[in-house]
Amino acid sequence: MLNIAIVGYGNIGKAVIEAIDAAKDMELVGVIMRASSLTKPQVSVPVVDEVGNLPTKPDVVILCSPSRTIPEVAEPYLLQGISTVDSYDIHSDIWELRERLGAAAKKGGSVALVATGFDPGGDSVIRALLEVFAPQGKTYTNFGPGMSMGHTAAVKAIAGVKNAMSVTIPLGTGIHRRLVYIEPHEGYDFDEITKTLKADPYFSKDETHVFLEHDIESLKDVGHGVNLVRKGVSGKTHNQLFEFDMRINNPALTAQVMVASARACKKQAPGAYTMIEIPMIDLLEGSREDHVRRLV
Amino acid sequence: MLNIAIVGYGNIGKAVIEAIDAAKDMELVGVIMRASSLTKPQVSVPVVDEVGNLPTKPDVVILCSPSRTIPEVAEPYLLQGISTVDSYDIHSDIWELRERLGAAAKKGGSVALVATGFDPGGDSVIRALLEVFAPQGKTYTNFGPGMSMGHTAAVKAIAGVKNAMSVTIPLGTGIHRRLVYIEPHEGYDFDEITKTLKADPYFSKDETHVFLEHDIESLKDVGHGVNLVRKGVSGKTHNQLFEFDMRINNPALTAQVMVASARACKKQAPGAYTMIEIPMIDLLEGSREDHVRRLV
Repeated sequence: MLNIAIVGYGNIGKAVIEAIDAAKDMELVGVIMRASSLTKPQVSVPVVDEVGNLPTKPDVVILCSPSRTIPEVAEPYLLQGISTVDSYDIHSDIWELRERLGAAAKKGGSVALVATGFDPGGDSVIRALLEVFAPQGKTYTNFGPGMSMGHTAAVKAIAGVKNAMSVTIPLGTGIHRRLVYIEPHEGYDFDEITKTLKADPYFSKDETHVFLEHDIESLKDVGHGVNLVRKGVSGKTHNQLFEFDMRINNPALTAQVMVASARACKKQAPGAYTMIEIPMIDLLEGSREDHVRRLV
Repeated sequence: MLNIAIVGYGNIGKAVIEAIDAAKDMELVGVIMRASSLTKPQVSVPVVDEVGNLPTKPDVVILCSPSRTIPEVAEPYLLQGISTVDSYDIHSDIWELRERLGAAAKKGGSVALVATGFDPGGDSVIRALLEVFAPQGKTYTNFGPGMSMGHTAAVKAIAGVKNAMSVTIPLGTGIHRRLVYIEPHEGYDFDEITKTLKADPYFSKDETHVFLEHDIESLKDVGHGVNLVRKGVSGKTHNQLFEFDMRINNPALTAQVMVASARACKKQAPGAYTMIEIPMIDLLEGSREDHVRRLV
């Protein structure tokens, strides 16, 4: 049995607990969260403010805290010999995170699985496989329709925004429309907020539509989609066509991939890895022979 | 540079040469084929009847000979320390092949990458990834429309068949229709051949239609398709929907995956592996940092 603790108890943390519960080869040994947090987890395991206070030392911690906190949060665990799984999604900085956590993991004899989840993560594996299939060509990743966590957070950071939701609509070939629903604080001007939002680098390059709403919560749906398309060349043969499509509950998929990644941690040499750097079989529960017989 | 030789010079062999030519990190050092073969390869490298007669010892041989010959063909190379790549496609015996070639590879200090190509091979990676995404559920692999090499060979083996082609039509949820085009030898009864064919285990379980044809070659098209569908459960969330679709030139894709697998051979410890047992990044040409930055 693999002993797992989770760090953070938001949407992803709750879904991770469900996925651990559904796995037969691992056990939740605790939830680690700030003592000051207002949420009281509904769990049957110890809730502590630091890992040292858990009765059972975890083999792996699954980090369900915001991306920007990951480098600082992960490092101390890795140095203590506890492996980490994150769903760090700032694409431009993944290599740097991997370098930093790799150094800590090698020092602590642990493993960091970085940028797991659905994108980066599962989609990254698909993108790599499509380049194996057709090394020359172009892949387009189309997101949605669905709520974008990153874009929603960017809208909420604008002065005068009480609540908001940003929905991503795929227009094909990697081009996206943004539908932004905003509930302003009293006394703030909706048109002014819209102007600020449209100038924000998160939105300035995309077709963006902004709507005034008074009950954002009633609009929410964590369903999401990805459509990945590649047309390319195998050897000297052009027009090889590939398409991957998924329609999923976003936190449930992200959490499931993170839990599978916790399993894979125990099968790698100390260091940091992204999902394209580990064998798929290491993510699966069960015997190697059974997987090869069923899946190959 | 990785030195590669190919064994066999049929459709796949020719496509492998094209894919090696398109890769910047490897070089074709020879073609190995029976001295008695009637085909004379149009290549600028030595054509020999055994590997010892090549001026340059290859690091990897890509086996482009029929599946049933693979166990006997691969073993001597592996024992000599030369890695092998095959596209062995008898699904029920892949684990046994992996065991047998694994023993030889460990003895010779070489690597066998078994059952590469598009299915088994690329599709196996997709099937594994979909179980990572949703461990509970069912995956359907739908083949076609396109010519099935295995089924075509089975028809040609029936007495009285001069030439034939078996086309696979996907009916969804893993159910297939077979369209079989037959050119009989003179004096043979088409209805008798049809009866024998419909009783053959290759066809007896599927909806099979048999047609009399007089010019099979004019019907041939090596285009093929796969549609892989999974509906399953991530954690405790049902109705997660996944679909992978490709429309491809079959020999070109098979050959491209085999050539990528030759590259991956040099990155594994001695032994035998299927594609779900190696990291995707090992199959790609170029630097780790570049791949992580672009694909993750």
